[in-house]
Amino acid sequence: MEAARLHAYTDEMSEALQIDEVDRPTVTASNGVVVEVEGAGWCQTDNHIIEGMWAEYVDQPLPMTLGHENAGTVVETGDEVRLVEEGDPVICHPVQTCGICRPCRQGEDMYCENNKFNGLTTDGGFAEYLLTNERAVIPLPDGVDPTDIAPHADAGITAYHAAKKAVHELNPGDTAVVIGIGGLGHIGLQCVDAMSAPDIVAVDIKDEALDLATQLGATHTINPTRDDVVAEVDALTDGTGAAQVLDFVGADQTTGYAPDIVAAGGDHHIIGYGGHVHEPSQALVNGEFAFRGTLVGRYTELQELVALVERGDVELRTTRFGLDEVNTVAERLEHGEIEGRAVITP
Amino acid sequence: MEAARLHAYTDEMSEALQIDEVDRPTVTASNGVVVEVEGAGWCQTDNHIIEGMWAEYVDQPLPMTLGHENAGTVVETGDEVRLVEEGDPVICHPVQTCGICRPCRQGEDMYCENNKFNGLTTDGGFAEYLLTNERAVIPLPDGVDPTDIAPHADAGITAYHAAKKAVHELNPGDTAVVIGIGGLGHIGLQCVDAMSAPDIVAVDIKDEALDLATQLGATHTINPTRDDVVAEVDALTDGTGAAQVLDFVGADQTTGYAPDIVAAGGDHHIIGYGGHVHEPSQALVNGEFAFRGTLVGRYTELQELVALVERGDVELRTTRFGLDEVNTVAERLEHGEIEGRAVITP
Amino acid sequence: MEAARLHAYTDEMSEALQIDEVDRPTVTASNGVVVEVEGAGWCQTDNHIIEGMWAEYVDQPLPMTLGHENAGTVVETGDEVRLVEEGDPVICHPVQTCGICRPCRQGEDMYCENNKFNGLTTDGGFAEYLLTNERAVIPLPDGVDPTDIAPHADAGITAYHAAKKAVHELNPGDTAVVIGIGGLGHIGLQCVDAMSAPDIVAVDIKDEALDLATQLGATHTINPTRDDVVAEVDALTDGTGAAQVLDFVGADQTTGYAPDIVAAGGDHHIIGYGGHVHEPSQALVNGEFAFRGTLVGRYTELQELVALVERGDVELRTTRFGLDEVNTVAERLEHGEIEGRAVITP
Amino acid sequence: MEAARLHAYTDEMSEALQIDEVDRPTVTASNGVVVEVEGAGWCQTDNHIIEGMWAEYVDQPLPMTLGHENAGTVVETGDEVRLVEEGDPVICHPVQTCGICRPCRQGEDMYCENNKFNGLTTDGGFAEYLLTNERAVIPLPDGVDPTDIAPHADAGITAYHAAKKAVHELNPGDTAVVIGIGGLGHIGLQCVDAMSAPDIVAVDIKDEALDLATQLGATHTINPTRDDVVAEVDALTDGTGAAQVLDFVGADQTTGYAPDIVAAGGDHHIIGYGGHVHEPSQALVNGEFAFRGTLVGRYTELQELVALVERGDVELRTTRFGLDEVNTVAERLEHGEIEGRAVITP
Repeated sequence: MEAARLHAYTDEMSEALQIDEVDRPTVTASNGVVVEVEGAGWCQTDNHIIEGMWAEYVDQPLPMTLGHENAGTVVETGDEVRLVEEGDPVICHPVQTCGICRPCRQGEDMYCENNKFNGLTTDGGFAEYLLTNERAVIPLPDGVDPTDIAPHADAGITAYHAAKKAVHELNPGDTAVVIGIGGLGHIGLQCVDAMSAPDIVAVDIKDEALDLATQLGATHTINPTRDDVVAEVDALTDGTGAAQVLDFVGADQTTGYAPDIVAAGGDHHIIGYGGHVHEPSQALVNGEFAFRGTLVGRYTELQELVALVERGDVELRTTRFGLDEVNTVAERLEHGEIEGRAVITP
Repeated sequence: MEAARLHAYTDEMSEALQIDEVDRPTVTASNGVVVEVEGAGWCQTDNHIIEGMWAEYVDQPLPMTLGHENAGTVVETGDEVRLVEEGDPVICHPVQTCGICRPCRQGEDMYCENNKFNGLTTDGGFAEYLLTNERAVIPLPDGVDPTDIAPHADAGITAYHAAKKAVHELNPGDTAVVIGIGGLGHIGLQCVDAMSAPDIVAVDIKDEALDLATQLGATHTINPTRDDVVAEVDALTDGTGAAQVLDFVGADQTTGYAPDIVAAGGDHHIIGYGGHVHEPSQALVNGEFAFRGTLVGRYTELQELVALVERGDVELRTTRFGLDEVNTVAERLEHGEIEGRAVITP
Repeated sequence: MEAARLHAYTDEMSEALQIDEVDRPTVTASNGVVVEVEGAGWCQTDNHIIEGMWAEYVDQPLPMTLGHENAGTVVETGDEVRLVEEGDPVICHPVQTCGICRPCRQGEDMYCENNKFNGLTTDGGFAEYLLTNERAVIPLPDGVDPTDIAPHADAGITAYHAAKKAVHELNPGDTAVVIGIGGLGHIGLQCVDAMSAPDIVAVDIKDEALDLATQLGATHTINPTRDDVVAEVDALTDGTGAAQVLDFVGADQTTGYAPDIVAAGGDHHIIGYGGHVHEPSQALVNGEFAFRGTLVGRYTELQELVALVERGDVELRTTRFGLDEVNTVAERLEHGEIEGRAVITP
Repeated sequence: MEAARLHAYTDEMSEALQIDEVDRPTVTASNGVVVEVEGAGWCQTDNHIIEGMWAEYVDQPLPMTLGHENAGTVVETGDEVRLVEEGDPVICHPVQTCGICRPCRQGEDMYCENNKFNGLTTDGGFAEYLLTNERAVIPLPDGVDPTDIAPHADAGITAYHAAKKAVHELNPGDTAVVIGIGGLGHIGLQCVDAMSAPDIVAVDIKDEALDLATQLGATHTINPTRDDVVAEVDALTDGTGAAQVLDFVGADQTTGYAPDIVAAGGDHHIIGYGGHVHEPSQALVNGEFAFRGTLVGRYTELQELVALVERGDVELRTTRFGLDEVNTVAERLEHGEIEGRAVITP
């Protein structure tokens, strides 16, 4: 089969991945599942992986097929698999977990001590077939198209996961600020809106992104190229600040808003990781706020997100590309030229 | 009466405060309370105030009497006060709150929109008498000496407040790391021990502090001048890290441990504010940990801490000084030469 | 002024209250507030009070003016009141709290050890003027009519309070069952819908109530006079049961559904109190569910509900009556003949 | 091998189980584990099962080997098992879970949709060997004896599970009431004491049980045969009631204390199931308290309990019996004549 593989880290997105002819994977364990990939979302993290930004955090055997946002149809199952069978449409949580270690037993899939992460530490879905396991697949409800929903496998649950933390702390009358209305941010905003009732302030440097935010439920918008984010949030909240901030950018500038825009006792969630956190400890103490890093969501959160999608509460903007166009996608994303989410259809 | 007042910010601790003769305060509102001060703890924050480190965060009318850790005996009450009467021994929460704004209604005394903070934004307790209000005083149980308990009014509840957040996330088998076993840290360690059952690892550069930690309940100790904190925590936790870290130092070096010692999903609580937080956003995302700033505790938390003291679960090491010795105390604290907590007895 | 007062407990609703000429109340404490009543909701609890059903739970000095759901305009304030001034439109939390006891300090207004409850333990709002205090009034946003919003002062926050507990446990894909779509239930259903994204199943014996439920956001409806509630919930939840049940009836029959319709780990919230809870302890153990009694909400929850109303997320069906019609209202409510919520306009 | 099996429900404990010669179980699935049983605790629930009290709640194929509190040594493993190997000492969580259904993915082992419960729905440990799976075994730390720790597999985690819920709501200065200081209660009391710092009031009709409670950490004791439980709790809590009640009896009388002894906002946890809950809905509303049913704990809670045991925070009183003495144990437990917990050593 064909697979888009990373052979060496590079900053040249036009030569990022190579289309190789490789063996189709087959099931080797009792809980193995092979999925014929119908959609594989391309993520900002794929660019980061290509640049080598994850090499110091995880082991990456190269060459490796990238692609961690996958959906498709089951074509083979291990002999003890009961959840799915051949022909079932599924979305794939990006992490294959063991189900035995303590984090797995707590439902913390992302902290599995024996995990394999599709397209990050093992072969992913920019290929015709993907090998995963029974603990990573979720059967899709009728009427949900695998290609359309694929990006929710990572972009979606990462945004949902952050939103779920935030809504637990949001009351009517509170303000939530969403920074960065891109691939993840536009999902996160909808999740916050569906699961709580705060005022939602969207922040982005592109007016089209802010228009989208307004359509999706934002109460107010701020474009930092024109307006002073701190002054605007201050005015919108009568000086008390935003109870929760979801930062889908994570740049030095956006994390730097925190001391001035987060309400006492509130949280600045770091989801995007474009830069750094730099603050005097005293700022965190005085405002009693937190910088909370947030990772990909749990398997059960992907189930919950699929339920939101089925209810019509979350819509996803996607554009489709062939497997041979992966490097074009990488380049265009690097230049901010992708509308919504790019989905590869191998 | 005599009061130790700050007239100008300075780095010269030997000339920090001036003993002035001022009018004794009297009750002006229906809920006012005047306390004859029997003990007023000296805090690292007093040194920070003297240096001007709080000037950019709050309004400070100078000259101002410092002292925010006060206890003593009620000598005058406003005409609607019912909680206490003349002669009652009390400990004083450092913040005088309005009881009307939304944070007050949520029990969040520290976020009161109309608060006055003894010795930080209004006259404090390094004086013979202190004016406060009914919402800031807690009657002491029989047998508890006001002078002994005074430092709990701020050092105590700050440590307790952080500990209470931490213990909600600590299960038996987890590890808590306490960094800095000084005035606050030695209280925080005891609070964690009284209210949960994790392994407790104490970190300090002074061996005497580590000996104290062991006496007070620490399971393990690490002296960073000799041992590698990251390697030790890694070994003690089988590589999973500490579920909760309480950082009573807050220096660049101690906050820098976080990505390497905090378990996935865990928290690094910033209580001390000796330096900065500097991390790539990616570190917070990859480890899904949080830097959580933590401030002085609530009024109800001071009630809870008094209960812990009455049970014998928390002991406090104090040394007494006269009002005329305030600058000596300031200097000695600056050089790390105070044993336990200094208490001024005006 | 005129006031509708209870002189003796009775089951005869046609003679329940008596219109008396009494002195207009005036401010006696520094935080006192007198409100000219523009709307006072009539509640099922008023009927229960008239029948003497609360006599064993609280002290009730008779004769007493009933009415605990009040809104109007401030006409007099104590000399230390800062939150409101003459002429301000306000809604009145039903409980006048002390702000000093530990429950008050925790934000638990309903547990205040020195509380006075309008129309239950002290004179209420079925009168031209109501004496309350600064801790019980919430200024209304522009454009919100006091008469329209009055019932939210008790019916509203009771429903909101229960809904807020429930939504903390509800994920997308879960099911919430709302039993009794009357004065409180139709508000509770809207609150659940605004603050979470579960499937909502409405249960009522009147089809008009179920039609209203559908308009307000219910996904499914069940009429127990025709359908088997247990079988229907079982079918709608694939046998797992409802994660949260909000029981606005609290009759023997409705509490009896719990073991069969509440999901493992879920809650059956008792808000209405028309009957009893009767179950073998083993049923609660086997299903690991809870019967959670739920009372009137907090002051801060009334603020949050006002925010929901201002957003347009919660609409209230009301009918207005004069002060001289109180007994007609009592009778008609007894016979289930009030459309929406009755509001007295003294 | 020999196994003590239930052939028919009976109230005659002297003829409860029959010692049968049956085949030794062998591994049939890739994650199967066979344990040679060294200790199997006898539980009040075993008596209830024999009486047929669980027949309406679960399917029970008879004849069935009872015994759900098992520990021993691994003697055989399925070919994909990695957690343990032959010769490892283990304690067995009583429920064999699938690891695939949504409750399993949330860490809620007890709600597994495909679970098998040792000695309740499948053969248990009153036999020489027990078949279970990798998701149900926990390796024991060095120095912990399987026979001694066996009862923690059910009695222990049930008590721990209830205690863990309770301590999340307990602050210093609060009161916890523990009713029934028997097999479960004496563990629950120690868990509350180890993980929080409230006053603990023990209630039991046997003075020896109360003496044990005092040794294990109770602050006060009440014997209902002599003293009025309601009046005593009222006096001990200054009229505010107990924040948390752990009812290890669950009889009509003990659940009946709730309206009078549970503090506003508190919980009465139902762990024992000797009777019923009978209350007017109004009582739950007025006191805003909950009856919370509580079941066996999670796998991860058994890990946490093993950590508490290893720390020395929880001690267990046991008496050993041979497999041929099972009916003697059943009879003696029925008459309250077992000291501590009976452990069968097959």
